[in-house]
Amino acid sequence: MPVKRSGIVTLLTDFGTADHFVGVMKGVIASIAPRVRVVDISHEVPPYGARAARFLLGQSWKWFPEGTVHVVVIDPGVGTSRNALVVEAGAHLFVGPDNGVLSEPLQIKDARARTITNRKLCMKEMSQTFHGRDVFAPVAARLAAGLPAARVGPAAADAMMVTTDAPVRTGKRYWQGEVAYVDRFGNLITNFAVRDFPELKTRPFALRAGFEALTELKENYAAGAPGEPVLLAGSSGCLEVAVNQGDAARQLGLALGSPVELEIR
Amino acid sequence: MPVKRSGIVTLLTDFGTADHFVGVMKGVIASIAPRVRVVDISHEVPPYGARAARFLLGQSWKWFPEGTVHVVVIDPGVGTSRNALVVEAGAHLFVGPDNGVLSEPLQIKDARARTITNRKLCMKEMSQTFHGRDVFAPVAARLAAGLPAARVGPAAADAMMVTTDAPVRTGKRYWQGEVAYVDRFGNLITNFAVRDFPELKTRPFALRAGFEALTELKENYAAGAPGEPVLLAGSSGCLEVAVNQGDAARQLGLALGSPVELEIR
Amino acid sequence: MPVKRSGIVTLLTDFGTADHFVGVMKGVIASIAPRVRVVDISHEVPPYGARAARFLLGQSWKWFPEGTVHVVVIDPGVGTSRNALVVEAGAHLFVGPDNGVLSEPLQIKDARARTITNRKLCMKEMSQTFHGRDVFAPVAARLAAGLPAARVGPAAADAMMVTTDAPVRTGKRYWQGEVAYVDRFGNLITNFAVRDFPELKTRPFALRAGFEALTELKENYAAGAPGEPVLLAGSSGCLEVAVNQGDAARQLGLALGSPVELEIR
Repeated sequence: MPVKRSGIVTLLTDFGTADHFVGVMKGVIASIAPRVRVVDISHEVPPYGARAARFLLGQSWKWFPEGTVHVVVIDPGVGTSRNALVVEAGAHLFVGPDNGVLSEPLQIKDARARTITNRKLCMKEMSQTFHGRDVFAPVAARLAAGLPAARVGPAAADAMMVTTDAPVRTGKRYWQGEVAYVDRFGNLITNFAVRDFPELKTRPFALRAGFEALTELKENYAAGAPGEPVLLAGSSGCLEVAVNQGDAARQLGLALGSPVELEIR
Repeated sequence: MPVKRSGIVTLLTDFGTADHFVGVMKGVIASIAPRVRVVDISHEVPPYGARAARFLLGQSWKWFPEGTVHVVVIDPGVGTSRNALVVEAGAHLFVGPDNGVLSEPLQIKDARARTITNRKLCMKEMSQTFHGRDVFAPVAARLAAGLPAARVGPAAADAMMVTTDAPVRTGKRYWQGEVAYVDRFGNLITNFAVRDFPELKTRPFALRAGFEALTELKENYAAGAPGEPVLLAGSSGCLEVAVNQGDAARQLGLALGSPVELEIR
Repeated sequence: MPVKRSGIVTLLTDFGTADHFVGVMKGVIASIAPRVRVVDISHEVPPYGARAARFLLGQSWKWFPEGTVHVVVIDPGVGTSRNALVVEAGAHLFVGPDNGVLSEPLQIKDARARTITNRKLCMKEMSQTFHGRDVFAPVAARLAAGLPAARVGPAAADAMMVTTDAPVRTGKRYWQGEVAYVDRFGNLITNFAVRDFPELKTRPFALRAGFEALTELKENYAAGAPGEPVLLAGSSGCLEVAVNQGDAARQLGLALGSPVELEIR
């Protein structure tokens, strides 16, 4: 049974908002599907920032109604032989290049990926450098308006999936993780999902990040004195290092991808 | 009589637009109230920038249709015991934390503030760090869809109100004011409301800002030679110092909060 | 026959998104025409950046449905005697100051320009510094809701048109062009429209940009080795210099307006 569409398309790109790229994608969508509404997730993904894009997609898609079409355009290989995908997963739809940015939905149990081969769904004149406009926007608009996903093309046999985003166990008591995202406030969001570590509530532990070792879960940002690093179960569902009214990334000297270590005793 | 809803929710936050926060709030609103439309006022309020947020809210809400729901999330105390408010005032509705950011609507004559205590209106699993998603967005969506404000909770007895935003009389002829906002062009918007100083049209005066003393109201930015500071009755209704095709804040060395003095002779 | 309206207004300004200006324009539009939808093209045009605005308008308007109203507010002369225009051209409508930013639609064959003189279509109290709110937004909202363009005012006899955006032939084999735009990725988009130079496909040529001479059209960004400048027929329809996963503007030391030369042998 195909999922009923919500009539919403979300956009996640590295296009920025200064240029015409995002506006043009919205024009294409409005031309094809006038009733579809577009919601921006972010256009400030660092150019070619696949890791950040995977995080932002993972954080946002679930909060939209079922049947929403999520478009991700982080696409340094645009115009090469890389494929374009539509993924149905978790009662949502995802559209983007086959370069790993759709890893999160591809890992959902019921995921079904298809390669976009039906050129009739794309713009007639196709550029080699702006598939956001010529492929992803028109296909997303049509999907959001009700087009069955099967119409875009055949099943994709081996869509690219990045599965290195999870922590790795490195010893009986040790897990190696990383900073999965740094938000605007400088909060360091790790890849330690709180639900995967129930021992955090019952046993002594230490999260090591830079020169800090945090051994207690706090309730909120204000639980620390100003300037003091605190460890939280963040709104992302992951362990997060913050500094009350400060910038943890700057203070601890860490960035996206920096290693963090969890020890549970 | 409850105000008829316009079906619009506005958002004013310090979340920036690079992260997922704003997109997630819009997803929550779309999930609860699919027909409600969301308009961004700004997400570039400096982190914890309550003064700028009060100015931006004051400048924008009146331009929307009656029955619009305005959400303000500048919330360093998220997850602490600070309350969350709904304010009905001037035929609009306002939603945000009880930390002073809603001072402008709270000072309207007919203002009625309520504390959000009805947890059924919020997300089931509530984080301690992202009430924009878990409290403010769902409550705003429901209000915009028609929920009577009385349903959110009881009257708030002593909502926090910042009333220091107005100029202070410091002598027979002198008022001490401040730079209330610096806009993208570097224009210095003061807290001197032109309508409160009708003498500006009939008597000699001087506005002192940095090392400049401006003694004449000009019609528009182009009334000054390039590089010359000019004083205007700005679009905000307040005295504004600008430099034609230049940046007054940089040129005069002033910033948000800098003192300015008005002398009326 | 008047064009049927699409119900969409696009906005292109130099207002940035930190201040209240764009939100206020959307509030005015929603108050006047509740069903009209607003799409942002860009608000990051450099202050007074007329050249960039002309490029962005030229790149975006055609991708929207016929009957869309495109508002451009780059307006250093706001409040002076400069006129405000409505241009009907190519089955779209354009609204903005008469200072050259509407040059692109004005050069379309069927273009008809009118001066906005009907004050009833504007806000009652009109500021001298924010015609985006007081003139352009309300007029655009009414046009988008169906108001015939003739109602705004009389035909504009000599609307300002900038026609220096095209390359100039400087010799039998030489054309002098310029960088028309630098996008977020640092790609240098020239003003050489590919369709005007069919010889590029059949004869030897060289595009000189900074210290580089590019003699081959590549298919896409990834066609160059990382760090190597490549010449493309870009998605804008113009010759474009890019660096695979790099920043051509920085690497070649060029910016908006920098000269480039095309030689066709």
